[in-house]
Amino acid sequence: MRENHLHRIFQDSSPRLKGVSGPGDDCAVLIPPAGRKLLQTVDQVIGGVHVELDAEPQLYAQKLLRRTISDLAAAGATPWAASWTIATPPQWSAARVRALAKAFLASAAEFKMAVAGGDCSQASVPVLTCTALGLANGRIPGRAGAKPGDVVLVSGKLGGAVRSGRHLCPEPRLAMGKALVEDYSPHAMMDLSDGLASDLPRILTASDCGADLDLEHLPLHAELPPERAGWESAVGEGEDYELLIVCSGRSAKRALQDCRFRGIGLTAVGRITDLGKLRWLHRGKVKRLKSRGWDYHWGSET
Amino acid sequence: MRENHLHRIFQDSSPRLKGVSGPGDDCAVLIPPAGRKLLQTVDQVIGGVHVELDAEPQLYAQKLLRRTISDLAAAGATPWAASWTIATPPQWSAARVRALAKAFLASAAEFKMAVAGGDCSQASVPVLTCTALGLANGRIPGRAGAKPGDVVLVSGKLGGAVRSGRHLCPEPRLAMGKALVEDYSPHAMMDLSDGLASDLPRILTASDCGADLDLEHLPLHAELPPERAGWESAVGEGEDYELLIVCSGRSAKRALQDCRFRGIGLTAVGRITDLGKLRWLHRGKVKRLKSRGWDYHWGSET
Repeated sequence: MRENHLHRIFQDSSPRLKGVSGPGDDCAVLIPPAGRKLLQTVDQVIGGVHVELDAEPQLYAQKLLRRTISDLAAAGATPWAASWTIATPPQWSAARVRALAKAFLASAAEFKMAVAGGDCSQASVPVLTCTALGLANGRIPGRAGAKPGDVVLVSGKLGGAVRSGRHLCPEPRLAMGKALVEDYSPHAMMDLSDGLASDLPRILTASDCGADLDLEHLPLHAELPPERAGWESAVGEGEDYELLIVCSGRSAKRALQDCRFRGIGLTAVGRITDLGKLRWLHRGKVKRLKSRGWDYHWGSET
Repeated sequence: MRENHLHRIFQDSSPRLKGVSGPGDDCAVLIPPAGRKLLQTVDQVIGGVHVELDAEPQLYAQKLLRRTISDLAAAGATPWAASWTIATPPQWSAARVRALAKAFLASAAEFKMAVAGGDCSQASVPVLTCTALGLANGRIPGRAGAKPGDVVLVSGKLGGAVRSGRHLCPEPRLAMGKALVEDYSPHAMMDLSDGLASDLPRILTASDCGADLDLEHLPLHAELPPERAGWESAVGEGEDYELLIVCSGRSAKRALQDCRFRGIGLTAVGRITDLGKLRWLHRGKVKRLKSRGWDYHWGSET
């Protein structure tokens, strides 16, 4: 099988969407619907980092697309088109690469996204990337609008995503993200991919404020104990792909009663302060947690 | 150094462009200028495949951006915004990753592109990807419009790109691509990244026709001999990043006299036929070449 065969799979199977040319040319031509904002985000799935090296190609493709569009959910956007790159090991068979391509197409179709293009190459470990485009109306919350007194909320439940295998099939909170943006004007919103301990500080830095979070209010997955080990998992392990929302106290009160959010769950976990740092409280007392969340770091030159 | 520090380099240094939100949020917000088409393309640079594994980070970044926007040149588009992903080996130092980021920013600035976002992770070999957006007016040539009787042209000179090191700093033919689209309505156009022997058949397949190419007319780089070894290099090695253009005989005649193209060079190398295959001719006689151009292939399951 050669690269051209892969092109053919895409040309034959990619769902056609108005305003998105199919794959096959050097560039995709995109004509976003008038009056809508275009959102773009990019993410990766690497064998041995985000999935087991020998995971089924379907798992690679599904996690790739889903974790990428989780960023669109955090902007209240509707997925529109996806491009991808694959670098696969030379020992991956044609059948395996074909299965990967078909699984990516199936994941895109599941979310009604067109596949706009891609590139394939080789690397000793599988490295997949996805660029997703979404469409949105109105204001995008971003990270910079949190204000002291605002309430911090999270969707769903946190922690244990890797151990339980949930991280392989994240559920992008698209409908919830859109409803939150449209009806509750969040001051800041993002998806929890690296863990609350790593992601919330990004909002705090961008908004120049602090936060007090109540450990006893964290919505832990059922398999986690409601004590230190559970909290550390919930704030530090990442890969939850839940929404982290900051909004006014009034909006929070209304959102917490919105029956559309009952299924997934929405929980107030703390509030924004003017103290300039993130504090973990347990029944009002400050606790130290070890978790810093997931973050890449590079060493100094040796 | 942590991922957040890398974000800061980008937030502080990325050129701001109207309609492109800077990096830092989950998604970039893009508002393309009214009435223009948005083009998107994606490409990769992998250590050990596209550059030497231990190449300077500047070379990685520069080749990545330039080879990606070469696709925009082939659509007659003007570069607008870039996103990227990096997966770097754990032994890459913070200084090296910082140099990589700065070089990518510098390359984007060189072409007046905003940097809209990115993602970083780790892999045992460096795998970099770039998604570039461009803006275009009017018709995009694509690959499907070639007709029997049309002339096949190439820009610049071909061959020896890897041996000479030229492949490390491709020169995207942006001004030429734009001028060709605006003034000569090419029936098909693409960039020569995999070699004429691999790229031209993509146009022929999409357009359902054949071509006769005259080996004696191939514009070879000066270091190549005007005989078999030179031809094989020129059609088979790839990485030329020149334009491959198909247009009517009348347009070709005019374009060949366009003084704007004198510096880079524009050469008629053959014509489109209705024979359904690509033939290499030398003084009118059919020659067999070994080169198939560059193409990834995957083996069968063993």
